[in-house]
Amino acid sequence: MHPSDWKHPTGDALYERARRVIPGGIYGHQNPVYLVEGVFPRFLCQAEGCRVRDVDGHEYVDFLCSYGPMVLGYRDHVVEAAADAQRRLCDIGNLPAPNMIDLAEKLVEITAGVNWAMFAKNGSDVCSWALAVARRATGRDLVAMVEGTYHGVHGWCNHLGRGFPDGERAAMRGFPWSDWKALEALFDENSGRIAAVIVTPFRHEARFDSEMPARGFLETVRALCSKHGAVMIVDDVRAGFRLHLAGSLQHFGVTPDMVVYSKALANGYPLSAMLGADSLRKAAREVFVTGTFFTQAVPIAAALATIDEIVARDAIAHMDRVGRRLCDGLAERAAAAGLEVTLSGPPSIPFMTFRADQGSLARSRSFAAEAVRRGAFFHPAHNWFVSAAHHDADIDFALDAAEAGMAAVLSEFGRD
Amino acid sequence: MHPSDWKHPTGDALYERARRVIPGGIYGHQNPVYLVEGVFPRFLCQAEGCRVRDVDGHEYVDFLCSYGPMVLGYRDHVVEAAADAQRRLCDIGNLPAPNMIDLAEKLVEITAGVNWAMFAKNGSDVCSWALAVARRATGRDLVAMVEGTYHGVHGWCNHLGRGFPDGERAAMRGFPWSDWKALEALFDENSGRIAAVIVTPFRHEARFDSEMPARGFLETVRALCSKHGAVMIVDDVRAGFRLHLAGSLQHFGVTPDMVVYSKALANGYPLSAMLGADSLRKAAREVFVTGTFFTQAVPIAAALATIDEIVARDAIAHMDRVGRRLCDGLAERAAAAGLEVTLSGPPSIPFMTFRADQGSLARSRSFAAEAVRRGAFFHPAHNWFVSAAHHDADIDFALDAAEAGMAAVLSEFGRD
Repeated sequence: MHPSDWKHPTGDALYERARRVIPGGIYGHQNPVYLVEGVFPRFLCQAEGCRVRDVDGHEYVDFLCSYGPMVLGYRDHVVEAAADAQRRLCDIGNLPAPNMIDLAEKLVEITAGVNWAMFAKNGSDVCSWALAVARRATGRDLVAMVEGTYHGVHGWCNHLGRGFPDGERAAMRGFPWSDWKALEALFDENSGRIAAVIVTPFRHEARFDSEMPARGFLETVRALCSKHGAVMIVDDVRAGFRLHLAGSLQHFGVTPDMVVYSKALANGYPLSAMLGADSLRKAAREVFVTGTFFTQAVPIAAALATIDEIVARDAIAHMDRVGRRLCDGLAERAAAAGLEVTLSGPPSIPFMTFRADQGSLARSRSFAAEAVRRGAFFHPAHNWFVSAAHHDADIDFALDAAEAGMAAVLSEFGRD
Repeated sequence: MHPSDWKHPTGDALYERARRVIPGGIYGHQNPVYLVEGVFPRFLCQAEGCRVRDVDGHEYVDFLCSYGPMVLGYRDHVVEAAADAQRRLCDIGNLPAPNMIDLAEKLVEITAGVNWAMFAKNGSDVCSWALAVARRATGRDLVAMVEGTYHGVHGWCNHLGRGFPDGERAAMRGFPWSDWKALEALFDENSGRIAAVIVTPFRHEARFDSEMPARGFLETVRALCSKHGAVMIVDDVRAGFRLHLAGSLQHFGVTPDMVVYSKALANGYPLSAMLGADSLRKAAREVFVTGTFFTQAVPIAAALATIDEIVARDAIAHMDRVGRRLCDGLAERAAAAGLEVTLSGPPSIPFMTFRADQGSLARSRSFAAEAVRRGAFFHPAHNWFVSAAHHDADIDFALDAAEAGMAAVLSEFGRD
């Protein structure tokens, strides 16, 4: 399709209907205000492999992977067959199905430093649950987190805070990313009161370049937690299964006390997991957290198949390789265009910004708008994801779309 | 199977494995300590209609319906066909699929007093979200709830509280069920500070007889909320779609400002919904709550089919009828046995206790243990559920199992 024919009549009509019965039409992370309004689609209706199709028939090579879950690609045959087989037996029940044990055993087997697992539905569920377990285990109240980090939407970490009483954040203490001196000061100022430190494997906040941990940061968090008897919790919801099969912190050689997963764990089926060390087992038994759908057997079957296929296809190495091909290609084409870009994050979870934007994301939006018209779905403000279903030809197709995006930036903003 | 041959070798072995890798083996509401240990199964592996099968091959007529969701029965053909059709297109995505609008429109159309809908995964998600919307809309901080009521597991309402800081409960105020004078006093003592009152349609706490609202209670909650500018929120997670299609409060002729659903909404697929009046639309847009799987299209397709089938099969009237057959039969057989029982709750969500237990549930456990050996799954401590898949023959079969359960009570405890 030529960009001048770029229209979304079906999507526009749907959005008008949506706005009547859903506040804002589309809410949360999928809210169109975070993309480029009038250019990006608002509704998708088909997905297969690394490609998605919108309601007006436009197809895209997708670099968002539903914000992470699609680690093997949409409608992966092996995962779907496993889910179908379980679905013919049972899904939710009065009691769990046996495959809950299989998945707990598998996660304990592959993940460094943990001895048990429990399951829920959302990333938010398991981040909050992990804090509760740490507090119960230590008998302490405070939790340290990196300022501004997204750990979900519960009151203690809700970014906007609107509607959540201040009391729900009262037991949180913030420190800047990679600033272990600030964390050390927190431990000193709150002697014997810090139950846990929760960190992501790398910093991946929307609107900002991703930041890998400064040398020694994660090691120092580990050492400070051990020294002060606090629990080191890794929020691996976003990065999990794209950096290291044993937990993303193994990529950096550090072993936490707890890991929480969601997103990629079941290749799109709703599931999250909280994993912990033996020292936290008693506390995990004592904290009461539950949900009607937490032990649903079909997502668990999908997770078992997903993990097996990540191993069988050497998917983490594959994503690293195609992610590098994407990043190298973007860097080359930017250089050829005379544009300075920053590629950040690990190759399997890459992100690109334009230096001349100085944080405004104006060029990012111009770039993403043209690229999406050319069939590549790059989010302008949120880090991207690749999957095992992205192959060299998909990357190369996307690089051509990206080149058009860069030409649009040049045309709109000129050389930096 | 004769009760003397009652064994669970496969289930016992699985539980031993589970205890090594999952704290407590099985957690949350499915924890075997809430049933009768050594008698009830711990793992189920097949389900169809109103029957479930455990890992040792025992089959049960199920009166728990996975704690509510299975309103049409397990593996309902129409719901599964709708889910399958959607699954072939897409499930989760970077953006929602159009059927999110269809479901919002349908819920707005059938539900009294609401103009919009938003979706999540857990009942806990939408209870907390509704509180946030009410606080944002009113600019107030406090929320009144019935003391001891289960609204999920988040910090503000977690029953055990273990691991959750007191600050998360600081903005809650309790009043006793049906005690509108106490609620009125709360409004007077906290003038201009109460954002919302959250209530269930009837009181259905585990371990206790269910209590229908006292005459005038719900009407007075409604009137007090209107008078004081507070939001009336109905937690319809457990009762929803078993009392009235327009929201359970319509069964009592009262219209709230917000309704939250989960459980039966999608016949077992993980979905929850928050519905509200126009006056709350702006606040709902401003509160940021989201989750990776919230707008998943397959559970939404299942919900659309579930609601249509509830209507097509007149399922609510059916559940009322078979629930009455069950309750009447239990009352008759108890009377014949000389046992005094209390049948409580609406017929579609019934519960039975033995008066001589005086709250201990000792006879309930004896009853449920014998009934489960005879093939009827009655929870000893949690209210029961019937579904559209329960037919007269299933009820009559279960009544024979219940009669054996009553004989066991007589044999163990004698006449009251």
